[in-house]
Amino acid sequence: MVKKDRGGVTFPEGFKAAGIHAGIKKKGALDLGLLVSEKEALIVGMFTVNKMKAAPVQISQRRVRRGIGMAIIVNSGNANACTGEQGMADAMLLTEKVGHYIGCSAQKVLPASTGVIGRNLPMTSILNALPALSEKISPKGYVDFSKAIMTTDTYPKSSQKEVLIGGKIVRIGGSAKGVGMIHPNMATMLVFITTDAVIEKDALRASLHQIVEEQFHTLSVDGDTSTNDSVYLMANQMAGNPVIGKGTEWHREFTQALMEVASELRNLLLRDAEGATKFLHLVIQGARSKSDAKKIASTIAKSLLVKTAFYGEDVNWGRIMAAIGNAGVPVRTEKILIAVGDVALVEHGVGLGVDQEEKALEVLKKSDITVTVHLGMGQMTAEYWTTDLSYEYVRINAGYKGRT
Amino acid sequence: MVKKDRGGVTFPEGFKAAGIHAGIKKKGALDLGLLVSEKEALIVGMFTVNKMKAAPVQISQRRVRRGIGMAIIVNSGNANACTGEQGMADAMLLTEKVGHYIGCSAQKVLPASTGVIGRNLPMTSILNALPALSEKISPKGYVDFSKAIMTTDTYPKSSQKEVLIGGKIVRIGGSAKGVGMIHPNMATMLVFITTDAVIEKDALRASLHQIVEEQFHTLSVDGDTSTNDSVYLMANQMAGNPVIGKGTEWHREFTQALMEVASELRNLLLRDAEGATKFLHLVIQGARSKSDAKKIASTIAKSLLVKTAFYGEDVNWGRIMAAIGNAGVPVRTEKILIAVGDVALVEHGVGLGVDQEEKALEVLKKSDITVTVHLGMGQMTAEYWTTDLSYEYVRINAGYKGRT
Repeated sequence: MVKKDRGGVTFPEGFKAAGIHAGIKKKGALDLGLLVSEKEALIVGMFTVNKMKAAPVQISQRRVRRGIGMAIIVNSGNANACTGEQGMADAMLLTEKVGHYIGCSAQKVLPASTGVIGRNLPMTSILNALPALSEKISPKGYVDFSKAIMTTDTYPKSSQKEVLIGGKIVRIGGSAKGVGMIHPNMATMLVFITTDAVIEKDALRASLHQIVEEQFHTLSVDGDTSTNDSVYLMANQMAGNPVIGKGTEWHREFTQALMEVASELRNLLLRDAEGATKFLHLVIQGARSKSDAKKIASTIAKSLLVKTAFYGEDVNWGRIMAAIGNAGVPVRTEKILIAVGDVALVEHGVGLGVDQEEKALEVLKKSDITVTVHLGMGQMTAEYWTTDLSYEYVRINAGYKGRT
Repeated sequence: MVKKDRGGVTFPEGFKAAGIHAGIKKKGALDLGLLVSEKEALIVGMFTVNKMKAAPVQISQRRVRRGIGMAIIVNSGNANACTGEQGMADAMLLTEKVGHYIGCSAQKVLPASTGVIGRNLPMTSILNALPALSEKISPKGYVDFSKAIMTTDTYPKSSQKEVLIGGKIVRIGGSAKGVGMIHPNMATMLVFITTDAVIEKDALRASLHQIVEEQFHTLSVDGDTSTNDSVYLMANQMAGNPVIGKGTEWHREFTQALMEVASELRNLLLRDAEGATKFLHLVIQGARSKSDAKKIASTIAKSLLVKTAFYGEDVNWGRIMAAIGNAGVPVRTEKILIAVGDVALVEHGVGLGVDQEEKALEVLKKSDITVTVHLGMGQMTAEYWTTDLSYEYVRINAGYKGRT
C-alpha cells in the first residue's frame, strides 16, 4: 500500500511536517520547517567536522547523544553560526517553545539552521510564526517542509521507500537541501530521514554511518565544508515489524532500503549543484586500500583544473594524472589507466594518442560522464560524484555586489 | 657597480643564457632556453611532490644529488610528462647534445620542461635548434631566457640583487614562470636562480630550502600541483668572496639577499595569476604552531567560496570562518578575530555588525587586500599570498573547445 499523497519525511507512519514563511527570507518564501513524530523516536545524527559549528549543531549534537526525540525545528536563510552566546540562547529558546506547542521537553526538540553566517536569528518573527506552524503540521506536509529548508536550491528534494521486514511494511522517507554555498544563503547539506521501523539504537546508528559514508561523503561540489552540515535519522518504531537487531539479515535489508533513499537524495543534491553543466561519476579501481581510492577520487573532484577542463569539454587527461599524483598516496605512473565513458585515454601512464582523444570528445559533450581511473596497485575501489566548474558557479558565489 | 645591461639569471658573474624558437610553440614564440655557467657550479634543487613527475624532473632530481652542474636546458609548450620511456630517452638525449655543444658531460646538464602533458617532445625541431641556441648564449641573454620559459605568463619574470660578503660584491639573479595552469600549456612554477657566491654546498642547500618554504610555498593560485614544478639554484663560486659557511653571519646575509630575489619573483608570479583581479595577502597570527598557521592560511587560500566572495567584493567573513574551521587544526570560535585591511569584522568569533561591513566594502574595492586572522591560541604566525577566482580563470582554464 503506497501512500500516494505522502512522501519524504512524512512518508513513514506517525510523522507530520510543515513549512511556513516566518520572515527570515524575503518575498514570502518558506523559511521555517517543523518535523514531528507522534511518538517518541530514536534519533541519531552526524554533523559537520568544521570546527566552527553553528549553535543549532552544538545543541543537536548534545541532544542526539541522549537519543530520544520528538521534533526537529529547522530554518533557512540564517545559519545561526558565529553568533556567540546569543545564538545559543536563541536556538535553546526556539526548541523550548516548539516543545511547548507539541507537548514535550526542549531536550526532545532538535534545532537546525542553514543560511548566512554571523547574523542573529530574527527571533520575534520566528516565535510569532510558531503557533501557525505547529497547527499546520500534517502527514502531507513534506513538500512544504522540503521547501522551507531550501537556500540556493532550485527545487525541493525528497525521497521515500518501502521495505518488508518480517512481513511488515517499513517506510523510510527523507528530505534534503544543498549543495554548494552562496552568500547571503551560505550553507551546504542538511538531510532529514525518518522511518517507522522498530529498530535497536546501535543498529540505527550503524545504518546512518554506512549511508553517510557511502552516499553523502562521496559527493563534492566545491570542497568546502560548512558550519551547519547535518544528517538526522529518526525511527519512531510504529511499523509493527519485529525488532531489527544490529548485524542481522533484517538490518542489512533495512540499511539497503535506507541506502536507496540516501542515494536518491545524493543524486538530487548533485543535480542541483550551483552552476553545474556536467555531472561526473568518478570510479577509482585497483587501489591498495579504500582510503587510498577515496583520497584520489576526492583530489580529482576538488581539482579546479580538472573541473574547468570538463566545463570546457577539453580532453585534458594530464590534469587528471596531475590530480592523481597530488593525492598524497603511493601510485605508479606506469600502471595507470584513465578512461572517460568507454574511451581509454591513458594506459601504463602514457597517452593513447590523438585518435582516442578525438573519440573522447564525443563523451565530453554529454552531461553525464563517467571517469574511470585504474591504479593497478591493488583490488580496492571507490566511487565519487562531482560537477564541473562553470562561469555560473562564479557568478552565483561572487554574491550580489560583484560584477555579475 | 650595478650591471645595467644584465639581469635575471645572467646578472651574476660567469652566467650566460639565451632563448630561441625551436618549433614547440606556434607563431614563432620563444620556447627553448639555455642557461650556462662558465665554470662548474654547485647546483641544488627542489621539485614537485606530485607523484607524476615529468621525465626532466626525474633526471634533474638525480643529477642534483651529485650537485655539480654547468647548464640547464628548458623548454616550454610541452611538459614531457606522462611520456613513458620515450620521454626519459628524449630528455637524456637533449642533455647529452647540450653537453656536446658547451663541452661537458650530460650529467652536468639539467633538463626542465613546462607545457602540455602527455605529448612527446618534437625532438627533431629541438635538436635542430640547439646549435643556434648554444651560439646565442650571452651575459645579456636573461630576457630571451625568461621569455622562452613562459606558457600562459603574460610577461617575463626576472629579479636580481647584489650583496656585499666580506667586502666583495656577490650577485644573485633569477627567472621564473607561472603561475596557474592552462591547456594546452599546462604547467605551473619553474624558477631558476643563479649566484656567483663562493659558498659551501650545505649552506647553499639550506638557503634554498628556506626561500622555497618562505616564498614559493606561501603562494597558491588554484591549489593544484603540477608534474613539473622545480626550483633550481646554481652557485658558480666566481665572486671571489670568502667562503660562506652554513650558519654564519655571511650565510644569513646571503640568504636574506636570496630571499629578496625570491620574494620579488613570487610577487611577479602572483601578479600574473590567471584571471586574478584581487591579490590577497593572508596574515595568520596567534597560532599554536607555524604549521597550524600555514594550514589555516592554505585552507583559506584554496577555498572557492572565499575566492569567489573576494571576486564579488562581498563582505562574506562567514566563509573565512568556515575555511578556518575546515583546516583540520584546533581552533576556538570565541577567540577568533578577522580583519580586512584595517577594518575588524569579527571579534571573539562574533561579527561586529553592519557598520563594520560597510567600512570593509571600501577595502574590498581595492586590488590589494590584506586579510588578518588572529586565532588567539598562541604566538606563531604565517603569511600567504593568493588571488580571487574570476570568470577569466574559468575561461582560460576551460580550454579552447569550450563555451568561451
